[in-house]
Amino acid sequence: MTASRFRLVVHMVSSLDGHIAKSDNSVSWFDTTDFYEKGIELTVQDTAQFLQTIDCYIMGARTYEQALELSKSYGWAYGDVPTIVMTRRQLPVERQNVELYSGDPEMLVNDILKTKYNTVWVVGGALLTKDFIRLKLVDEIRLTILPVILGDGLPFLDQLKQELPLHLKDVKAYKSGMVELCYEIRK
Amino acid sequence: MTASRFRLVVHMVSSLDGHIAKSDNSVSWFDTTDFYEKGIELTVQDTAQFLQTIDCYIMGARTYEQALELSKSYGWAYGDVPTIVMTRRQLPVERQNVELYSGDPEMLVNDILKTKYNTVWVVGGALLTKDFIRLKLVDEIRLTILPVILGDGLPFLDQLKQELPLHLKDVKAYKSGMVELCYEIRK
Repeated sequence: MTASRFRLVVHMVSSLDGHIAKSDNSVSWFDTTDFYEKGIELTVQDTAQFLQTIDCYIMGARTYEQALELSKSYGWAYGDVPTIVMTRRQLPVERQNVELYSGDPEMLVNDILKTKYNTVWVVGGALLTKDFIRLKLVDEIRLTILPVILGDGLPFLDQLKQELPLHLKDVKAYKSGMVELCYEIRK
Repeated sequence: MTASRFRLVVHMVSSLDGHIAKSDNSVSWFDTTDFYEKGIELTVQDTAQFLQTIDCYIMGARTYEQALELSKSYGWAYGDVPTIVMTRRQLPVERQNVELYSGDPEMLVNDILKTKYNTVWVVGGALLTKDFIRLKLVDEIRLTILPVILGDGLPFLDQLKQELPLHLKDVKAYKSGMVELCYEIRK
């Protein structure tokens, strides 16, 4: 494994107006009832195969707490993939593959992640994501846009205060009306 | 021509982080240097043919002033298509196809536009666009996303304070790295 193969990927799901959460934190808007005739449809195998390319997840404390809460109804969403929760709080850890990390993001990426993994995904929240982008640690941004305008809520990537040229790498539209945009941050 | 064929389309060009203008109003970010191999490329004929489907443009005062300014270097961007500038100010009008309108948006759409046109485009600015959406006058939203993060500037569709379900109608990715998303507002 060489360092050059390493990719840190930011993944976000947003409404068309760029919100990643509603003010009341409800998640029912994720279940869109749209149907896009020309869209593609992933089989369970496609999804499983794709998820196998992810070697590690990074998330903030609130995203972790939300994932724990959701796991009571739907199971733990991140499987057995090593998952690092960036927090200074002592949060409950119930799974062997979950680890709390209270240190520096640059040290985490350069000294730990790059030596162990190829593909690492940052899956939220918004502040953590922006920190990683500002520190120039991110190679790719994947944005999934759902067919809805929320009109209010938590914005993604607001006030980044940095201009970054991107390279469009891939666009996929799904039968559900979801659009996935994949960009590389040009260095 | 029947009323049911009438479509009011909102068109916006934004950065990935949802800004439609930079804080200093500079427009150089529109010239992206990206290249997306899988993208489509429009010929001059394709573009001309497409523009022929637009029967009328609506814009706000500042968008008009900007278009006037840009016309000094690049020519008037909206051709001979009837163009309505919504403003209470007495702005200079140098073209026969440009008209100032200081009245009510609902009256404009229902009493004037619907009786004369099939396809009307609202091309900015942000406040005007949001007014039209809030008043339920808009049928379609076309968002062109450029491959850049601005990090700051004028946000589009912020604080709309209305949740609107959308139907994905079309997605096009261009060789320039631009992605065009076309949605219907579900009624």
